[in-house]
Amino acid sequence: MVRVKLLGTGKFLPKQYTSAEELDLRLQKPMGTVLKTSGVQSRYFVDGETASDMGFQAATRALSAAGLTLDEIDCIICASGTKEQAMPSTASLISEKLGSKARGTPAFDIDCTCLSFLVALDMMSYALDAGRFEKIMIISTEIASVGLDWNDLESCSLFGDGAAAAIFSCTPDLEQSKILSSSIETYSEGAHLSEIKGGGTKYHPRYFLESDGAPHLFCIDGKKIYKLSAKVLPEFVSQLLKQAKLTIEDIKLVIPHQASLPALKLVRKRLNLGGNQMMITAPKYGNTIASSIPIALHDAIYENRIERGDIVLLLGTSAGLSIGGIVLEY
Amino acid sequence: MVRVKLLGTGKFLPKQYTSAEELDLRLQKPMGTVLKTSGVQSRYFVDGETASDMGFQAATRALSAAGLTLDEIDCIICASGTKEQAMPSTASLISEKLGSKARGTPAFDIDCTCLSFLVALDMMSYALDAGRFEKIMIISTEIASVGLDWNDLESCSLFGDGAAAAIFSCTPDLEQSKILSSSIETYSEGAHLSEIKGGGTKYHPRYFLESDGAPHLFCIDGKKIYKLSAKVLPEFVSQLLKQAKLTIEDIKLVIPHQASLPALKLVRKRLNLGGNQMMITAPKYGNTIASSIPIALHDAIYENRIERGDIVLLLGTSAGLSIGGIVLEY
Repeated sequence: MVRVKLLGTGKFLPKQYTSAEELDLRLQKPMGTVLKTSGVQSRYFVDGETASDMGFQAATRALSAAGLTLDEIDCIICASGTKEQAMPSTASLISEKLGSKARGTPAFDIDCTCLSFLVALDMMSYALDAGRFEKIMIISTEIASVGLDWNDLESCSLFGDGAAAAIFSCTPDLEQSKILSSSIETYSEGAHLSEIKGGGTKYHPRYFLESDGAPHLFCIDGKKIYKLSAKVLPEFVSQLLKQAKLTIEDIKLVIPHQASLPALKLVRKRLNLGGNQMMITAPKYGNTIASSIPIALHDAIYENRIERGDIVLLLGTSAGLSIGGIVLEY
Repeated sequence: MVRVKLLGTGKFLPKQYTSAEELDLRLQKPMGTVLKTSGVQSRYFVDGETASDMGFQAATRALSAAGLTLDEIDCIICASGTKEQAMPSTASLISEKLGSKARGTPAFDIDCTCLSFLVALDMMSYALDAGRFEKIMIISTEIASVGLDWNDLESCSLFGDGAAAAIFSCTPDLEQSKILSSSIETYSEGAHLSEIKGGGTKYHPRYFLESDGAPHLFCIDGKKIYKLSAKVLPEFVSQLLKQAKLTIEDIKLVIPHQASLPALKLVRKRLNLGGNQMMITAPKYGNTIASSIPIALHDAIYENRIERGDIVLLLGTSAGLSIGGIVLEY
């Protein structure tokens, strides 16, 4: 049991709303192709916004929702699967936009691809509980669109851009908010099932141009990921619930990473979830990488799907291949 | 006070030993230029090794030094300022090389540029103390050379490649090892003083080729970093020592990030350090980004510069600009 309380969330979607039909046109596909392939009706693409711009907006909104000012935040973590620049951390670029009130506040990045938000919350919860920080802000901000291969219908019909931020404190005395259990597992036999080979030191952009087989674009083997996820998911969740001394019926809402519609169906089926027991935002935003869990968490709060005292399960898989979960009393 | 014990370290340097004179030749500069500019006599550059190759080697050596096997490690953190691929985490690529015994062990990245190792140790120490993990491995593995601008003498004479790994546990009962105090501060007015603009989502490699002003190469304004560091360092260390209830005389060895020889002289002068009170490895390896602190820590142990019970100060600045320190009883 780790004493952590969610104080407020903020969400930011970039300007360029793109419906499935607009994407059909752009991809020169028969009308209906994108929706049929991905189940994603709409997504938002950046139109000039940077990751730190979006992170800044989400952070500002989270502060407002929590009724806090920036000088009350003791640590800024950017938890994203994509970076704005190879160096420095995206957190320091967001800090720069936040301005002088963020001066001196530690800022760094945590990356577990789509699970970055979940991993950051899990790891930082111990620093909060121990009193190292009073209040922290975790920001996920993702631009998937710039790395999409527009010839790969599966991935380019699925992903969207967006950001979300969440502020956490140690739980005040006499309050009940807490993490009941948490777990992360990495199965690196799946390390190359979804990846962007380039951009880092291995296939460095100075040597690899577009003619070299587009190493800078995202590629995914959805079928193999599905298979590996399906294999590890049930036992993973069973252990997580056991550790929290709960059953799946105790979970008010499962907030999964919005990997894809088939992935969400898999979660629903394998966990035997009731009709209203899972948050589904993929049709509205697509898969927004690490920001998909905090965006769904934000929407769950604003749509009154959860209230204080409810038990929530954050859950997902990510490139790596990792699986992660947090059972949280909101 | 956080109960953390360092169980073992490992270091790996890539094949291509390069003396200052060899670099003079390569850069077509008068003999002595590189040494005079940087004070770095030798550095090691990769010759085919990837970041995960080096991280794997360092990890294997750390396991051997600690007398542990991989299945005893509960979490693998890659704490580096550079990534091997844009996606997934370098930790999962190292996990892949470590093989089936790493199966299921969580693997993710923490990035605070040159301070990544220090930040990872600081943050993960609370998870260790709380019993979330029994033993963790933090690996820093850096390939600086691929991103160097060979026309910028200041940076290309300074940097080197290399990796180090360190294994930590919660301190067993009746033992004294601990973190006495730790701190990180980010001053993002310095966010662009050292950076690689490209490689991420802002200047994406698919659009930016070498002709576009080389956005994928490292650039640094050493003078401004020196000035900002000099301004924040003395008060930062003073607070860190105060928190640990120690004075600088209690520190057996300062293990600083090997940013540059002038930076090391600044630390020595501002902290009023004795002749043998600081670990200096920059002349042998150059600045190896985040691996420079754990490489220096490794050398300090193997050269018997520290023994159990000694108080060590890990200290450095990083792109961001961040400053970080840990007072550790080894």
